[in-house]
Amino acid sequence: MTRILTGDTPTGRLHLGHFVGSLENRIALQHQHETFVLVANIHALTTRAADPAAIRRDTLEIVRDQLAAGIDPERATFVVQSEIPAIAELTILFAMLLPFSRVMRNPTLKAEIISKQLGDHYSFGFPLYAVGQCADILAFRADLVPVGEDQAAHIEMTREVARRFAQLYGDVFPVPEPLFGRVPRLPGLDGVEKMSKSRGNAIFLSDSADDIRKKVARITTGRQSPTDPGDPTNVLFEYARAFIRDEAHVRDLADRYARGDNLGDGEVKRQVAAAIDALVAPMRERRAQLTDARIVEILHEHTRRANAVAADTLAKAKDAMRLAF
Amino acid sequence: MTRILTGDTPTGRLHLGHFVGSLENRIALQHQHETFVLVANIHALTTRAADPAAIRRDTLEIVRDQLAAGIDPERATFVVQSEIPAIAELTILFAMLLPFSRVMRNPTLKAEIISKQLGDHYSFGFPLYAVGQCADILAFRADLVPVGEDQAAHIEMTREVARRFAQLYGDVFPVPEPLFGRVPRLPGLDGVEKMSKSRGNAIFLSDSADDIRKKVARITTGRQSPTDPGDPTNVLFEYARAFIRDEAHVRDLADRYARGDNLGDGEVKRQVAAAIDALVAPMRERRAQLTDARIVEILHEHTRRANAVAADTLAKAKDAMRLAF
Repeated sequence: MTRILTGDTPTGRLHLGHFVGSLENRIALQHQHETFVLVANIHALTTRAADPAAIRRDTLEIVRDQLAAGIDPERATFVVQSEIPAIAELTILFAMLLPFSRVMRNPTLKAEIISKQLGDHYSFGFPLYAVGQCADILAFRADLVPVGEDQAAHIEMTREVARRFAQLYGDVFPVPEPLFGRVPRLPGLDGVEKMSKSRGNAIFLSDSADDIRKKVARITTGRQSPTDPGDPTNVLFEYARAFIRDEAHVRDLADRYARGDNLGDGEVKRQVAAAIDALVAPMRERRAQLTDARIVEILHEHTRRANAVAADTLAKAKDAMRLAF
Repeated sequence: MTRILTGDTPTGRLHLGHFVGSLENRIALQHQHETFVLVANIHALTTRAADPAAIRRDTLEIVRDQLAAGIDPERATFVVQSEIPAIAELTILFAMLLPFSRVMRNPTLKAEIISKQLGDHYSFGFPLYAVGQCADILAFRADLVPVGEDQAAHIEMTREVARRFAQLYGDVFPVPEPLFGRVPRLPGLDGVEKMSKSRGNAIFLSDSADDIRKKVARITTGRQSPTDPGDPTNVLFEYARAFIRDEAHVRDLADRYARGDNLGDGEVKRQVAAAIDALVAPMRERRAQLTDARIVEILHEHTRRANAVAADTLAKAKDAMRLAF
C-alpha cells in the first residue's frame, strides 16, 4: 500500500483553493492509501511566533475543516507537527545533508519571502522550514505527496535528501513523488492572484450559502450584456470548470458565452454559486456535529499512531547513521 | 544550587588547550554545582556527515578523556546530544525567535568558516548549529557555562534567546552567564595558532611522558644560549605559567630568563614537560581502567538523567508557547 503525506500550515479557515489543490485528492486517496495529514503548527511559528494562541486556534480549526470536508479519522491520521519529536530530530539531521546555498536558492522560499513581504526581516526558522518539510515527508516514509504546484521545489529538495541519505548511510527513505491537484492554481475572486485568505479573495469551505452567493456576485468580468461575446477563460469560467462537474454542460455554457448567445454573467454566477454550495453544504452539516472535545480526542489518538510510525523511521535513520547508543 | 552546562564537539582526543580553557573548570565545579557535560556529536555532523563511524568513536573517546581527567560520573552527567530529543525540538522553536541576519552575523560562526576553510561549501546545518547551541544550554536551564573565549558570541546569542522567549511567552529559562577558563587561549606548540588537533600543534591528555617531552622539546623560541636575554612572554613561558603551579617559582624563572641569567631553554622545557606530565600522569592511570563497556553503561544511565531534565524543560517551554495538546 502506498503511503501518503500531505498537509497545510494552519493559517486560518480552509478555502476552495486548498480544496481543489490538494484536499480533494487526500479525501479520495484515503480510501486506497495509508494517509497522513500534517498540521504544520511549527511552520506557522515562522511568521507568527508572537501569536501562539491564534496558531493553537487555527490548528483545531484546520482539523475541523478537514473532518467536515470528508477526511475520515478511521482511515487518515492527523499529524500535529509539534507533537512529533522525530520530525524535529530528522530536521536537524537532514540540515547536515543539504548545502546552505541549495536551501537558500529554493524558489518556493524566495517566492514566499516576496509574497509575505518579509524583506530581510525573517527568522532563522523561515529558511530552516524548507529543511523541515523534508523531515515532515520522510518521517512518514511517504511515497506520494499531494501538494499544490507551488510546493514542487520543496518536493524536489526532499527527493535530494532521500537520495543523499541513501548514498551516505543506506536505504531508509523512499524517494517521494508529488501529486498535483486537478486545479493546480485556483485564482481568487479578484481574478488576479491565487486564492488566499490574506488577500481577501477567498471562498471558505465554512462559508454560508449566502456568503458564497454574495462573493461570486462580486466577480468582475468587464462584460456588459448577455449578448456581448465573453472570454471563456476568465475567472468566472475558471470557477465554472473547477466546480460544475458536468463537463458537457460547462463546454456548452462556455460556447454560448463566447458567442454572446444570450447568456448573462448573472446566470453563470448563479450556476457557479449553486455548484460551490452543493460541494460545501454537506461540510456545513458535518462541521455542526464536531465539538472541540471530539477534535482533541481524535488528535490524541492520531498523535499516538503518528508517533509510532515517525519514531520507527527515526530509529532506522539513527541506526544507519551510527547514532544508536 | 547553580546548574552548569558545558561541553565539546567530539573531534578527537582532548588536549591541554581544552583542559585549561574549560575542562579544568568543570572538574572543579562539579563538586559544588549540578554539572551537565555535553558531547556534541550532532554538531560534529556539520562538517563530518560523511564519516559517522569516526564521530561515534570520538564520542566514546571524549567521554573516556574526561572521566580520566577527573569528571566524576556520580556527580556530573554526560549529555550525548543525539540521545536528547528535547534539544532538537528546542532548536527548531528557538530558530523562530532569532532573526536570520542575526545568526549569520555571529562572529564565532564567521571565524569557523574561515578557520575550517569552508568557503561557500557548508551545510545548512552549519549555521543552524549556532541556534542549536542555544538549545544545548537552555534545555538544561543552565545558569553558568564554562567555555573557551571563542564561544563568547554563542553565549551572547543564547542570552538573547532566553530574553526573547521570556518577552513573548513567559519566564522559563534563566539568562546564562559564561565562565571563561584560567587560560582562555592556549597557543599551540608552534606558538602561532591556538592549540588544535587539526593544526598538529597539540599535546593530548592521553600523551605518554615520552610524547610530552619530545613535543615540548620541539618548541622554538629563537634563543641561542642560556646567557642570552630571553622573552618571558614567548610560548614556552605561556606554558610555564599555565602548567607550573608554583607562581613564585615561575616568576623567578621568567626573571632569570629575561636577564639571561644562565637559564637555558632546555632547562625550562624540562620543567614544563615535568609539570605537564605531573598533570596528565593520573589521567593515564584512570584511563587504563576505563573499558568501552563501562563507558557505554555510564552513558545509558546519564542519558536517562539528562532526558529527565531536558524533557521537563521542553514541556515547560511548549506549555508557555501554547503547544501542549
